[in-house]
Amino acid sequence: MSSPLDRLHVVLVNTRNPLNIGAAARAMSNFGFSNLRVVNPYEVSFREARSAVGAAELLAHAREFQSVAEAVADCSLVVGTTASGSRELRHPLRRLEQGARMIRRRLASSGVALLFGSEKRGLSNEDLSHCHWLMRIPTREQHGSMNLGQAVAVCLYELVRDRKAAATRAPKEKTANAAETERFTLLLLETLRDSGYIDPQAGAAADEKVRRLVRRLNLPAGDAEVWLGMLRQIGWKTRGGR
Amino acid sequence: MSSPLDRLHVVLVNTRNPLNIGAAARAMSNFGFSNLRVVNPYEVSFREARSAVGAAELLAHAREFQSVAEAVADCSLVVGTTASGSRELRHPLRRLEQGARMIRRRLASSGVALLFGSEKRGLSNEDLSHCHWLMRIPTREQHGSMNLGQAVAVCLYELVRDRKAAATRAPKEKTANAAETERFTLLLLETLRDSGYIDPQAGAAADEKVRRLVRRLNLPAGDAEVWLGMLRQIGWKTRGGR
Repeated sequence: MSSPLDRLHVVLVNTRNPLNIGAAARAMSNFGFSNLRVVNPYEVSFREARSAVGAAELLAHAREFQSVAEAVADCSLVVGTTASGSRELRHPLRRLEQGARMIRRRLASSGVALLFGSEKRGLSNEDLSHCHWLMRIPTREQHGSMNLGQAVAVCLYELVRDRKAAATRAPKEKTANAAETERFTLLLLETLRDSGYIDPQAGAAADEKVRRLVRRLNLPAGDAEVWLGMLRQIGWKTRGGR
Repeated sequence: MSSPLDRLHVVLVNTRNPLNIGAAARAMSNFGFSNLRVVNPYEVSFREARSAVGAAELLAHAREFQSVAEAVADCSLVVGTTASGSRELRHPLRRLEQGARMIRRRLASSGVALLFGSEKRGLSNEDLSHCHWLMRIPTREQHGSMNLGQAVAVCLYELVRDRKAAATRAPKEKTANAAETERFTLLLLETLRDSGYIDPQAGAAADEKVRRLVRRLNLPAGDAEVWLGMLRQIGWKTRGGR
């Protein structure tokens, strides 16, 4: 009965601000994840974080651990997140787009732990030594460090992202057919003449210019009738209500 | 000199909590965006938001507007974000994966406004009427509403996401060659005999079992020497230091 998403364990290590734990819980609930683990949170009362809007239950069920080793014990893949590519990393480092794909594949069959370090320092070298590899959100080099709640949200989004949805073409808006477009053109021309915008003596060139102008609008099919109705009423008024 | 990312204007409408404005600024800076616009913020002092870690300058340069119309006036595409697919929407609604692609294409040549509504109510119908279409982050139906700063971060991430990075295969870890593997196997067998794990009278079957066991390890090429060194030392000790 368990879904692959239930096999992911978000592990927050040494988090200082309980609001960030709440925000992580909220993002987890937004994207359909449920297993939150917390290692040595700074505030004992983190379960009351008001930022867990809509995710109070998830937060109440969060499991607390004394060490990273215990928190990841039942997972077959342990992935650490890092803001920097600069720290001397002794682990393979993967961009989120690639790493998430590997995590998704693993979640099909077994447990994965995704670790986030403290707001100030990130994961320590000791924490990292429990990881199989590291993952980096593609932030700018000059400003790599993200807010914790935002980093969790972005990682989880990438995990549930639908590649196929990205490739979907927006359905082209149907445009009015030529008859409707011409009816609109004629009404507009009449109104422009009645209002004095087009000189009654002007030749075919003026008409043709307006005709091209209207074609470039690509009137949406569903809106053609509304535009015709508007023009009819305006025309009636420009003719002095006759 | 302007980059496509500079053509995106993040527009926060009626934001109540200045911390969310700061968090949006931080995510913008993380992902390389610079133009923040604010319409009728609830707190006049939003520019001091401490949550704009590393993005104080961006926040200082945010432009303030009295109305959505003014805030989006110079943009050729205006996109609203919404948490729900349920509200009766009179706009085309696109998933983030698809909408971001369309925005990216437009940014190549002209300005785009991306609107985020207030924390409680989102964008009003009046706000939405300024939009060409709406975009939805693919959150769960049962808990669609995201934290504002997290929603901004996820949208901007999708805009800078690298499709090619997702498709990159992780380089296969090179494994030790057969000679190194066999050297390890022989040292291990010797140590297992010396330590009494394998009965000295045991036949070839025991050796073959260990040989298969070692092959399944797929010893990384770069680590083979270290493992051999460890085994040599351990073997020396099991033989009584001779």
